Amino acid sequence: MAPLAQSPVAVLRERLNTSKPAIAMAAHNPLASKLAEEAGFGAIWVSGFELAASYAVPDASILPMSAILETSRSMAEVQSLPLIVDLDTGFGNAVNVAYAVPRFAAAGAAAVVLEDKTFPKDSSLRSHGRHSLVSVEEFQGKIAAAKTASSILVIARTEALIAGLGQDEAIKRATAYAEAGADAILVHSKQKTPDEILSFCRSWSGLVPLVIVPTSYPQLSFGELARLRKIGLIICGNHAIRAAVASMRRTFSRILKDGGIAGVEKEIASVSDIFALQGDDFMRALEKTYLH
Amino acid sequence: MAPLAQSPVAVLRERLNTSKPAIAMAAHNPLASKLAEEAGFGAIWVSGFELAASYAVPDASILPMSAILETSRSMAEVQSLPLIVDLDTGFGNAVNVAYAVPRFAAAGAAAVVLEDKTFPKDSSLRSHGRHSLVSVEEFQGKIAAAKTASSILVIARTEALIAGLGQDEAIKRATAYAEAGADAILVHSKQKTPDEILSFCRSWSGLVPLVIVPTSYPQLSFGELARLRKIGLIICGNHAIRAAVASMRRTFSRILKDGGIAGVEKEIASVSDIFALQGDDFMRALEKTYLH
Amino acid sequence: MAPLAQSPVAVLRERLNTSKPAIAMAAHNPLASKLAEEAGFGAIWVSGFELAASYAVPDASILPMSAILETSRSMAEVQSLPLIVDLDTGFGNAVNVAYAVPRFAAAGAAAVVLEDKTFPKDSSLRSHGRHSLVSVEEFQGKIAAAKTASSILVIARTEALIAGLGQDEAIKRATAYAEAGADAILVHSKQKTPDEILSFCRSWSGLVPLVIVPTSYPQLSFGELARLRKIGLIICGNHAIRAAVASMRRTFSRILKDGGIAGVEKEIASVSDIFALQGDDFMRALEKTYLH
Amino acid sequence: MAPLAQSPVAVLRERLNTSKPAIAMAAHNPLASKLAEEAGFGAIWVSGFELAASYAVPDASILPMSAILETSRSMAEVQSLPLIVDLDTGFGNAVNVAYAVPRFAAAGAAAVVLEDKTFPKDSSLRSHGRHSLVSVEEFQGKIAAAKTASSILVIARTEALIAGLGQDEAIKRATAYAEAGADAILVHSKQKTPDEILSFCRSWSGLVPLVIVPTSYPQLSFGELARLRKIGLIICGNHAIRAAVASMRRTFSRILKDGGIAGVEKEIASVSDIFALQGDDFMRALEKTYLH
Repeated sequence: MAPLAQSPVAVLRERLNTSKPAIAMAAHNPLASKLAEEAGFGAIWVSGFELAASYAVPDASILPMSAILETSRSMAEVQSLPLIVDLDTGFGNAVNVAYAVPRFAAAGAAAVVLEDKTFPKDSSLRSHGRHSLVSVEEFQGKIAAAKTASSILVIARTEALIAGLGQDEAIKRATAYAEAGADAILVHSKQKTPDEILSFCRSWSGLVPLVIVPTSYPQLSFGELARLRKIGLIICGNHAIRAAVASMRRTFSRILKDGGIAGVEKEIASVSDIFALQGDDFMRALEKTYLH
Repeated sequence: MAPLAQSPVAVLRERLNTSKPAIAMAAHNPLASKLAEEAGFGAIWVSGFELAASYAVPDASILPMSAILETSRSMAEVQSLPLIVDLDTGFGNAVNVAYAVPRFAAAGAAAVVLEDKTFPKDSSLRSHGRHSLVSVEEFQGKIAAAKTASSILVIARTEALIAGLGQDEAIKRATAYAEAGADAILVHSKQKTPDEILSFCRSWSGLVPLVIVPTSYPQLSFGELARLRKIGLIICGNHAIRAAVASMRRTFSRILKDGGIAGVEKEIASVSDIFALQGDDFMRALEKTYLH
Repeated sequence: MAPLAQSPVAVLRERLNTSKPAIAMAAHNPLASKLAEEAGFGAIWVSGFELAASYAVPDASILPMSAILETSRSMAEVQSLPLIVDLDTGFGNAVNVAYAVPRFAAAGAAAVVLEDKTFPKDSSLRSHGRHSLVSVEEFQGKIAAAKTASSILVIARTEALIAGLGQDEAIKRATAYAEAGADAILVHSKQKTPDEILSFCRSWSGLVPLVIVPTSYPQLSFGELARLRKIGLIICGNHAIRAAVASMRRTFSRILKDGGIAGVEKEIASVSDIFALQGDDFMRALEKTYLH
Repeated sequence: MAPLAQSPVAVLRERLNTSKPAIAMAAHNPLASKLAEEAGFGAIWVSGFELAASYAVPDASILPMSAILETSRSMAEVQSLPLIVDLDTGFGNAVNVAYAVPRFAAAGAAAVVLEDKTFPKDSSLRSHGRHSLVSVEEFQGKIAAAKTASSILVIARTEALIAGLGQDEAIKRATAYAEAGADAILVHSKQKTPDEILSFCRSWSGLVPLVIVPTSYPQLSFGELARLRKIGLIICGNHAIRAAVASMRRTFSRILKDGGIAGVEKEIASVSDIFALQGDDFMRALEKTYLH
């Protein structure tokens, strides 16, 4: 557990700044979270999509809660960025949420994200996926349950645009969720252009900051998003696993083609780089101080 | 659990062929194991070093056994290459080995590797590491306990060269381990040239196949190793995590420098690539057949 | 993993005998399962209610799947009775079932029980609980998905009587579930008299064996149930945890009242009894054979 | 996570009172810990022996660390007594201790107990067990590493008497451990009479409080121990599991003998007792407030 002058919650709250949105990177294991900290990101997105991908299973409530919890905990142990944890629909109803959220708080999370889909969820980015939403009242119950159960931030994610319900419904839901206590609203779109999201942002009252995941409309820069003055957090939703896959594929194929490992040496991190990321210096200091 | 015509043990036994050694790739999560299968490797090395690195902790008996077990199990669920699992020193003495090995067999492993270091181990690749060995008799007890406890293959790893004890000791130990029941001998060296390993291989009686991890002497090609006719398996010991780290670093840094995610799109895997690796087709078929 | 002449599935199939029903005892940890084997029961009921109780949380889909899976696996390691595992509603829809069931098969289960409630479930024994059912078609999809995904037995549990839908609906559902592939039908009632269950049993066609959990109507003896010639399995659903609680309460309170531990010595198992249950003999044999 | 006015560490520190020693009860699952709180004990002993017994495996470093950690965490979630967690030898050397202890602190532990045996440990109560000790300096390194790694209490357990090294060695070790930072000293004896322990206590300087586990000499009352004015904590080391075993055995055997469950009803806890222990009231309140 990295020592912190401020609590992760306080740090994240400060960074949800609509004048200067924080940039979060997705991570699927503690190493990726440490690399994101090293690179200079402002928060970690403990992504259900990335985590499911790292297990090579669909992002459809297949991975057990324990995997997400354990991953969050292990990330909190090795780096100090605030963790924003993807809880999907919250593992059941508001009662389940009330039991689950304190576990993520104890695991070191700064925030959890709950989405208004029905359980079991389907990945938002999947075409022709199952995208039905629970009622506004039911989801407000989940938000309120999460807020009461712990002091970490609760980000309400509306899938109204993904489900094709239109901007009015999305704004209505986002407002209701903020009124139920949500600290921020994550609004997701899978349109290939940013129009839908930009229009939503401009119509947003600003009651609480927005959170954006621009996977489908990468052309929108962080600067353009910041200029809207409505967004507190921009999440790079899946770039860690996508980077890792591309590179492992290239490396694996090259090694078999070359019939040896010499050819890839220069393209991959060195063994000593890995030692450093494992905290070898810290361990050497422990050895020197405590082993006899 | 992938359906197999042959058991993983039978498949691996057949591939430990000194005329045509199998090539194993290290993996730290099920996705990496699936990519290795896709690339055409012959086995998966469930590497303690890679797994510890993915948790950003040293490879020094810090990760609990459950992490290795759970990872092995999850890999067996999504791909069909035989798993060779790195048990380090076996989590204690021969009694602990007798309890641990059946759990790895039940998790779907084809083989386990036990090493003759004292517990807690230190990474073999670490300079100035702690590299002391248990007695030959003690390690034979571990091998025999592992063999009796389950029907999976047991690969005995001698760290005699790493510990600086010389080739005679290494050969003596390898022979004693084979006599105690080991199905193969993994011999490790961290010399920057292949001389030490080549000399060991040439002196080896051939009682059982050898297993080689050429991290430190990458210039030695798989073909050259095969021509020794002593080696049944060549392990690429850490290239999955090293590839992933290099690519995540590059991608993370580029995104922050660009102030947006558009620039990295072409260098990383697409979202639909990830869907495919998650088994989206299989899930669609399940939905079509079973959801109403 | 206890060595078995027959697979757990084959053993259980044979014991689901309507002429001589098997008696299963609930267990919440491996020790309880071992005691049930020692006592002479024919199967273990890996009870969601008992397991949730052992964690002191409600039986309402709060415990993560990993807890049930890990408990099943640990029970399979230390005793040889067939395990019948309570999967509640199956952790989601038919897709989730298809992913979950093979994991329980790999954990050593002989059968899984799926119930036709909506998720998240509420305990059947709870008065004024939430007891709504999914459609017959939806539940048939779950059964078929479970059957295809693995070769273990699938027991379909209908909560139609618990939900107050009456015997006709219960028979209709039970028949539809058997037609979808269920190997047995568990029918649950919380009436304080056995009338409802007896009437159901007499009306049952006998397509597949019935499974009965007589918690609420304890006066019905195993012999009376057997004489119906419809029942293959009788489950004692919660007697392990209820026995443990009564005894721990008595012992704890007596120790504090006595101001010492001498007074309870004769009422509780001896330390050497516990050693024996831990398999001390087996460990001593391992030590003698493999430690040097 | 139960809300606490004081931290568990502060509560335990206050209770380690040599004028009025705290009484801790062993627990092997969260339910047992809740029953101990209900009965009026002052702390929970998260016993490695009880936990191993609940898995029906020997208490010999066979259970993975994750089981102990997960159990501790689940106990902290459902009751508010301070948890004293049995870490055995600390899962390796001082480096492993430095990595492990913060995890137990994050899990909600108030204290950890480390013992001076070699790894893998053997149960202290086992006759003819393996009982060798590490050097004083090595164990001081472990204590110092644990103290620096977290702010929870560190109780050093010396097995000098168990190993037959005599009182002088035990006093020497206890003193050295207190000097290295231990907050209390647990001294264990398996003599059938209390003479050895009483003599040790009388010779103890009082530098830090002692902790006593009077399993083998139950005739010594808590009052007599308190009058020594050296003891801060008395641990009832295995009475929860021993009570549970006796009662399950009796109940299981009676049910099979009776051919029904009616006969045991009055001897075991009622289903509604179990509901209450599961926090049914709390869940009903959640349902009423948050479900719509």
